[in-house]
Amino acid sequence: VRELDLIDAIQRALAVRGDRVVRWSGDDAAVIRAEGVAVTSVDTVAEGTHFELRTHGAEDIGHKALATALSDIAAMGAEPGEAYVALALPAGFEGALDIVRGMEALADRTGTTIAGGDVVRAGTLVVSVTVNGWARDAGELVERGGARPGELVGVTGELGGSAAGLLLLRGEGGEVDPASREALVRRHLRPEPRLAAGRALAAAGASAMIDVSDGVAGDAAQLARASGAHLELSLAELPLQAGVAEVARAAGADPLELAASAGDDYELLFTAAAGARDALERAAAAAGTRVSWLGRVRSGTGLRLLDERGRPIDLTGYEHA
Amino acid sequence: VRELDLIDAIQRALAVRGDRVVRWSGDDAAVIRAEGVAVTSVDTVAEGTHFELRTHGAEDIGHKALATALSDIAAMGAEPGEAYVALALPAGFEGALDIVRGMEALADRTGTTIAGGDVVRAGTLVVSVTVNGWARDAGELVERGGARPGELVGVTGELGGSAAGLLLLRGEGGEVDPASREALVRRHLRPEPRLAAGRALAAAGASAMIDVSDGVAGDAAQLARASGAHLELSLAELPLQAGVAEVARAAGADPLELAASAGDDYELLFTAAAGARDALERAAAAAGTRVSWLGRVRSGTGLRLLDERGRPIDLTGYEHA
Repeated sequence: VRELDLIDAIQRALAVRGDRVVRWSGDDAAVIRAEGVAVTSVDTVAEGTHFELRTHGAEDIGHKALATALSDIAAMGAEPGEAYVALALPAGFEGALDIVRGMEALADRTGTTIAGGDVVRAGTLVVSVTVNGWARDAGELVERGGARPGELVGVTGELGGSAAGLLLLRGEGGEVDPASREALVRRHLRPEPRLAAGRALAAAGASAMIDVSDGVAGDAAQLARASGAHLELSLAELPLQAGVAEVARAAGADPLELAASAGDDYELLFTAAAGARDALERAAAAAGTRVSWLGRVRSGTGLRLLDERGRPIDLTGYEHA
Repeated sequence: VRELDLIDAIQRALAVRGDRVVRWSGDDAAVIRAEGVAVTSVDTVAEGTHFELRTHGAEDIGHKALATALSDIAAMGAEPGEAYVALALPAGFEGALDIVRGMEALADRTGTTIAGGDVVRAGTLVVSVTVNGWARDAGELVERGGARPGELVGVTGELGGSAAGLLLLRGEGGEVDPASREALVRRHLRPEPRLAAGRALAAAGASAMIDVSDGVAGDAAQLARASGAHLELSLAELPLQAGVAEVARAAGADPLELAASAGDDYELLFTAAAGARDALERAAAAAGTRVSWLGRVRSGTGLRLLDERGRPIDLTGYEHA
């Protein structure tokens, strides 16, 4: 009975957006008007792995679970549609409705409808979100495997902020000015899926795209592998968020290496022909962000990272969050 | 690195089915050709709540997680499409690939493609499956809320088998003949989503439908609530699976009450106008099952269960599995 009360409360906390939803939460399944292609991704966050209840509030957890799933939709250049939420709740956990509220606030801002879900009892808190995004046809989308030799490699926004924010939350980041501290912690707790930028870059001619969830180094390696190409990136070009350098040094880490290897920034890493450079910069600016050009696609396979002096470096010793 | 190896092994264990899948596992998101309506449901099973590792093998867990999600698609009368799987795995758990193999065998038999997923580390084993089913238009589907006074209430197949199988697995079910034992245990470990029956009943005129996941009593109450109608069901008409009566009595339970209140049979409970009775029976037979008529829809609200002598009984003391 308490579980049914919780489900009722969750349903009351949610709203339908757009005109695709025919039936939603409350039947055996949601019914959504479909056309073109469905673009679907699932992301899961678990206590102890992706968050700790002592540093992450329930609304942060809900936000993050939906944000990571939406980030994959952004990286395809698709329009967000509906989210389906599985909550596995430990006995005595009281934050389920706040998790949903954190999600719903992001859903509202991104035009996403939370259209269904499941609530079960479990030994640990696990939140899994499947998002259906939509596009008119597959040709509008950008895959990971489209990078070609000679193209440029770019990234949106700023990097390293999420890792620095986590160091600060854990008390390992030293002292930074209060405004930077707040922005870095927020970057970690409330990552923002780059939906507008993803669609704009796709329309402006990005040839391959991936979201930066595991760190630029790891995600660039995946893009290279999917494309059958070699990527050469200069760490000196990484756009560090304000305060990242100080926090990294306080924690005994090299700022550029931290920014390259730490994840959860959810910026977009992409490739494009050199002739599309201006169009992509304008597209990013119109979507409220900017592009930093990190390097080149070359023939071959794998990834090479160059330090400030142009020497190859190896980040395999780094662990991502 | 071990996680990437596991993901590679999972991808190699999966196959694409049908012609809807444009891009699947390996990119940021799957891309699926869409038309008509998407019918989406999410179901989650967690260790300690829905299964125990000492009685359920990894393949059973994978089968069950996908079966419960497909059962919701069946109850809408939709065609199964793609499944997205979130695996939260405790440290040291070695059964992840077997979970996927159990799922894939059912996916193969039902024409479902496992098109994406996520693998994370967590404190407990949790498996969450989101299924996208498809229909040409929403008018082909059957909702929970369509029952009208005067209509009949029917159920497919046989009930009580899953609860009896669980009692046997726990050593609380006494002795039954080996063939019944095997069938009951299998019914619990490998429930079968009634996809063909769901589509056939929808096409033959079912007015409302729900899958029997929480027990006929609980699911009938939900159907009544969604329809704004009253359901009156006779327990004497419940189609007990062979061996259920013996197992229930050995465990000190009334067989009909067990069958009405115990869940996980994943049969379909539905309503229909009396004039559609023959058509529904033929549709069920063509889909390889049969219909038992349990009672009537009346005006009013709520649910009334009648025992063998026509006296109302209350099952609120029963807990479902």
